[in-house]
Amino acid sequence: MKILDLVPITVDVWTPESGAYIRQHLHRDTEVVTRRLVHGPASIEGEYDEVLAGPEIVAMCGEAEKEGFDAVFVDCFGDPAVRAARECCDIPILGGFEPALYYSLGLADKIGIVTVLPHVVSMLDGLIAKNHLEGRVVSLRHVNIAVLDLHSIDPLVAAVVKQARKAVEADGAGAVVLGCTAIVGVAEAVGERLANEGLSVPVIEAAQAALMLLETHVRMGWRHSRRTYLPPRAKDRTWWPGDGAEPMQA
Amino acid sequence: MKILDLVPITVDVWTPESGAYIRQHLHRDTEVVTRRLVHGPASIEGEYDEVLAGPEIVAMCGEAEKEGFDAVFVDCFGDPAVRAARECCDIPILGGFEPALYYSLGLADKIGIVTVLPHVVSMLDGLIAKNHLEGRVVSLRHVNIAVLDLHSIDPLVAAVVKQARKAVEADGAGAVVLGCTAIVGVAEAVGERLANEGLSVPVIEAAQAALMLLETHVRMGWRHSRRTYLPPRAKDRTWWPGDGAEPMQA
Amino acid sequence: MKILDLVPITVDVWTPESGAYIRQHLHRDTEVVTRRLVHGPASIEGEYDEVLAGPEIVAMCGEAEKEGFDAVFVDCFGDPAVRAARECCDIPILGGFEPALYYSLGLADKIGIVTVLPHVVSMLDGLIAKNHLEGRVVSLRHVNIAVLDLHSIDPLVAAVVKQARKAVEADGAGAVVLGCTAIVGVAEAVGERLANEGLSVPVIEAAQAALMLLETHVRMGWRHSRRTYLPPRAKDRTWWPGDGAEPMQA
Amino acid sequence: MKILDLVPITVDVWTPESGAYIRQHLHRDTEVVTRRLVHGPASIEGEYDEVLAGPEIVAMCGEAEKEGFDAVFVDCFGDPAVRAARECCDIPILGGFEPALYYSLGLADKIGIVTVLPHVVSMLDGLIAKNHLEGRVVSLRHVNIAVLDLHSIDPLVAAVVKQARKAVEADGAGAVVLGCTAIVGVAEAVGERLANEGLSVPVIEAAQAALMLLETHVRMGWRHSRRTYLPPRAKDRTWWPGDGAEPMQA
Amino acid sequence: MKILDLVPITVDVWTPESGAYIRQHLHRDTEVVTRRLVHGPASIEGEYDEVLAGPEIVAMCGEAEKEGFDAVFVDCFGDPAVRAARECCDIPILGGFEPALYYSLGLADKIGIVTVLPHVVSMLDGLIAKNHLEGRVVSLRHVNIAVLDLHSIDPLVAAVVKQARKAVEADGAGAVVLGCTAIVGVAEAVGERLANEGLSVPVIEAAQAALMLLETHVRMGWRHSRRTYLPPRAKDRTWWPGDGAEPMQA
Amino acid sequence: MKILDLVPITVDVWTPESGAYIRQHLHRDTEVVTRRLVHGPASIEGEYDEVLAGPEIVAMCGEAEKEGFDAVFVDCFGDPAVRAARECCDIPILGGFEPALYYSLGLADKIGIVTVLPHVVSMLDGLIAKNHLEGRVVSLRHVNIAVLDLHSIDPLVAAVVKQARKAVEADGAGAVVLGCTAIVGVAEAVGERLANEGLSVPVIEAAQAALMLLETHVRMGWRHSRRTYLPPRAKDRTWWPGDGAEPMQA
Repeated sequence: MKILDLVPITVDVWTPESGAYIRQHLHRDTEVVTRRLVHGPASIEGEYDEVLAGPEIVAMCGEAEKEGFDAVFVDCFGDPAVRAARECCDIPILGGFEPALYYSLGLADKIGIVTVLPHVVSMLDGLIAKNHLEGRVVSLRHVNIAVLDLHSIDPLVAAVVKQARKAVEADGAGAVVLGCTAIVGVAEAVGERLANEGLSVPVIEAAQAALMLLETHVRMGWRHSRRTYLPPRAKDRTWWPGDGAEPMQA
Repeated sequence: MKILDLVPITVDVWTPESGAYIRQHLHRDTEVVTRRLVHGPASIEGEYDEVLAGPEIVAMCGEAEKEGFDAVFVDCFGDPAVRAARECCDIPILGGFEPALYYSLGLADKIGIVTVLPHVVSMLDGLIAKNHLEGRVVSLRHVNIAVLDLHSIDPLVAAVVKQARKAVEADGAGAVVLGCTAIVGVAEAVGERLANEGLSVPVIEAAQAALMLLETHVRMGWRHSRRTYLPPRAKDRTWWPGDGAEPMQA
Repeated sequence: MKILDLVPITVDVWTPESGAYIRQHLHRDTEVVTRRLVHGPASIEGEYDEVLAGPEIVAMCGEAEKEGFDAVFVDCFGDPAVRAARECCDIPILGGFEPALYYSLGLADKIGIVTVLPHVVSMLDGLIAKNHLEGRVVSLRHVNIAVLDLHSIDPLVAAVVKQARKAVEADGAGAVVLGCTAIVGVAEAVGERLANEGLSVPVIEAAQAALMLLETHVRMGWRHSRRTYLPPRAKDRTWWPGDGAEPMQA
Repeated sequence: MKILDLVPITVDVWTPESGAYIRQHLHRDTEVVTRRLVHGPASIEGEYDEVLAGPEIVAMCGEAEKEGFDAVFVDCFGDPAVRAARECCDIPILGGFEPALYYSLGLADKIGIVTVLPHVVSMLDGLIAKNHLEGRVVSLRHVNIAVLDLHSIDPLVAAVVKQARKAVEADGAGAVVLGCTAIVGVAEAVGERLANEGLSVPVIEAAQAALMLLETHVRMGWRHSRRTYLPPRAKDRTWWPGDGAEPMQA
Repeated sequence: MKILDLVPITVDVWTPESGAYIRQHLHRDTEVVTRRLVHGPASIEGEYDEVLAGPEIVAMCGEAEKEGFDAVFVDCFGDPAVRAARECCDIPILGGFEPALYYSLGLADKIGIVTVLPHVVSMLDGLIAKNHLEGRVVSLRHVNIAVLDLHSIDPLVAAVVKQARKAVEADGAGAVVLGCTAIVGVAEAVGERLANEGLSVPVIEAAQAALMLLETHVRMGWRHSRRTYLPPRAKDRTWWPGDGAEPMQA
Repeated sequence: MKILDLVPITVDVWTPESGAYIRQHLHRDTEVVTRRLVHGPASIEGEYDEVLAGPEIVAMCGEAEKEGFDAVFVDCFGDPAVRAARECCDIPILGGFEPALYYSLGLADKIGIVTVLPHVVSMLDGLIAKNHLEGRVVSLRHVNIAVLDLHSIDPLVAAVVKQARKAVEADGAGAVVLGCTAIVGVAEAVGERLANEGLSVPVIEAAQAALMLLETHVRMGWRHSRRTYLPPRAKDRTWWPGDGAEPMQA
């Protein structure tokens, strides 16, 4: 099976190590190809960034389906343009939010999210509400670190532990979801430190969760509902694709 | 005061009459300028269309603010890119959904929405959930007419009355919101027909409501919250503006 | 257009300045006439006070409609007898709660209310629940100042800022509604002080909001739903009107 | 123990039989005294009627407490002025809605209410919302019979059975609450007819339930919360008591 | 009337005094018989304990019905096996949670629960959610005392007061439910101490409330809904009854 | 990896074919061992059956953990004793409800459940509420076929299609969850028939989903939260294990 890891930003935030990390639990025969946007925001830290990234995300999903990819991971916790891409495509398409959250529901009653910046809080509140998860998500905190500064693992772990502790002790969370797909490779360290404090809670990384759920969708043959996501009606649509300067026609 | 009526599609759906109609209750000194997208979808009938329209909407809101407009109406019931534009701008920006719904809350306990096509139903369900209006919106029905076919008033009125009647009688709605900003000029006829059947309920057109609420925001000096809508952080962002073929830099 | 500002208490709390202040954003041709109760409570600070004020409020709304008023503002944040008056009258009738809250929904995702006394908290909690606003109102705090002591602007501003700050920082509010229609003339000062602290949130005064919304209802020709508010059935009803000692018959 | 059955209308709807019926399950030493309003509405069928009845209800509750009554039943399903009276009094005060509903919660998961007229539907919807019972009340239907026409038992039973059947079969209710305290003496007949159709559900009469719950409150020594119902602050209040033409002072 | 007080544990936690205490408000002719499990957990402090106690609870309810008991109180705040027993029996069966909570709803808007151990918190959260009481229960705190250590009244009162104070002051509770049926005989002391601090709130003991509600069900002739609790279908079922080592057949 | 498929009933409902069917999407190196109860109900069709099955389920989970199983599937849609077993064990334990529902959330906005008998409806309503899925599950219908009669595939498919159609068309579901783990091998046929009618929705079988989710938990190293599921305190507990007649001691 072949999954597109569509990083919806223009900056290359992935090292070979982080890529290997998020793929480590997949089937040996699951291939993950990483691509990023040609034009768009350097990182997604709010709804403006999401909007800028949107058209190229949908176009790349469509191309991936034509190329024969089995599924697409829109590699951002805000699920940017994911619903739009599902209208246009038949293959499974997931962002980072839904998989991490839906998996977490089977691990604890109350979920805490630790994300990056205050700028994404109302965006994530919106996702929580739209997905009717307000009865389960009891905490939404941030480490106040920008997406492109997440690579320093030690301060990141310390910052995440600090917020996760509050999520568990003050807000009652029983599991912690790391609310940015660029937070990679810290779940074990965070989980251990919390456990050492007597707070034994699962810690879920969104990129890992998303790839795993996509693999599951493909193996199970599940396709997103065409009653929820109706195919777009034919009509004139012009836009700029990911790789050229000329507007195109749908 | 000067309001931009930003029609986020590439087709000109407005007649001078419809434009005059939606402006009729505004102050005499409120000027409304209509612009539409250069590139984007011919109409918005789903989340894919919204995504395509998004970047140009935000760019045009930003330009409007620089040109001295006092407010922008993103003239679509799906509120496309409205939250993103609020991050970028300080002037009031409203789509069609929020004004119609928030006004309706003061007129009846339970609200029914009559929209255009099945394609927009889950998109609107998402808006209802995101705005926490599920306790008030009891009905979401559609006339099964495409946006660009709404100009035939008589069949439109008949179709709207049919769905509005069900919203009131079967679903318990006490007010009817017309769920597409291109449904213009039928509220009175719909309301009268319903009243003749003993169903005296207010009927609210979204474009009228939005312009009125923007006028109110400007007169009251209200600005959207900067705790909900944080200004985007500075970073590289490339995109195609509404009027040229070259990618630009933010 | 002629609006009755029905102050549902027996004490005259308005100065000419405060009256001018709350009317400042209305159309020049909107006339606001202020009347207060002949009998009833000196101020409304709980549900007992609301009950005492109720019959005279409804009677005065009915008289206003007969006199040709276009709308009535029941000038109290608890919306006392507003629903009852809507059953009896066809003209728009609003209290202070609904307009301030519904306007605030378009300005921020999460709303904080700062009201006067602990005595009104469960009354307002009831209004929040009844209007299905619990998903949006995240904070309900009070300054612990009685209604008739609100005229000292400086301590009032200080007390409101203190509670508003907690609403924003501790409770996550993105907008602040001042939860008493007798809190007049402080929104700008409160908003500025909060902004100086980095908390840029809209601050909404209820009396201003209510008059503006009534003006809008009249201009738009919107009437409250007769499916929500059915006209009372004919029957014997005796009560004491506002201006005499003899019971009357409906 | 001595309970006041305060019928908040001016018409005598009770026969000795109906009075005996609603008291039949009380302790032999529980005395129930019935009084009705001197001035007010002939019946309560909407929020206007509630407002008219309100001041005299509160005054009569206060007098009952001074006379040594142990509790007051405000004998109407809309709980008119009950919360206001609790602010003023220390003895238990209940209307018809809360007891019937709270008892029903222990008998079935989903509750249906069968009430009198369409005029009270939005009033009861408000009570349901205010008391946070929307997760449990799945059906609100009416027999379309006015309060003062409820005395013909046979057509009443037939009409209630018809609506109760729909509540159970179409709406999923597992218990039926009779939504008017003047519906008396039909629960057994309704329950039997439903059981004969294979619908074995409890049927609860509100007046019986309320008297029983008041007896319980008194025996248990439970008093309503003074954190929810703060005593009214001292201030000028003028009103007309139940038995005279002169305004009085609190 | 004869009620079985079924203590669903194997340890005898009751003194004659505590038994008399919880029965003190019942009718003189209401007989309460106490029985406990032969096999099962020493106390119920989590869902594992509930599961172990379950089969014998249901069996003993069935035996009680055959012996002619009028009702059964499953004497534990977690309502263990109560719903199962209702499927099998026609007589009223209540645990400790539902009665205490449903009574509390008539005394205050917002309820706080003070329970024993952190081990029961998610179990009680589940009951709150299942019974749709999340709009009313605002606080769930524990004294961190095991069930079998609750007999020292003075430290218990002190610990309960401490948590109840937080429930009222920090969480806004207007009434306090003692969330373990083995907390007996402290309500008055807790209520007085809170009142001395200016926090006049009702304090409800679950065992008292349950017996009172069962007495009411029996007197009113109310039976649980057979639409909610369908009788089990005939089939093979083997289990170990309370008093023997051989599996039995239903 | 080795997963125990714990069928919590005493009747052998599985054929080799159905067993192979539900395992078909697992890793080749995932071993599934099926065991059923020695004592308990012949099938689970209500909360009484769940209670009878409970203790042996927990005991068998504990034994499986000791034997080195990596995870346990409690093979019933009602999730019987699953939460209790999680308290006692560290390995992942899932029933049929949670996996099917949580997977479905990523496939459609609104979920319909088609289950077996009316007897399980309120039990499943309870699970929906307890898991806070009421905003997503819009339909709960049954085919009125007992668990042990599900083996006739053709009438089962026809009956499921009939209810699924109503779930989609009348209730708005976008995905269908088959609400009994003994409904096996019909998803493809149901999905095709619905698609032929223009209702393209995913159809999810619970047993398949559960095994897949357990495999995922094991591969990801996720363990259920110890803040939600605290380990039981040491104390006396006697019960009958699955394989002997003598009570045992924990």
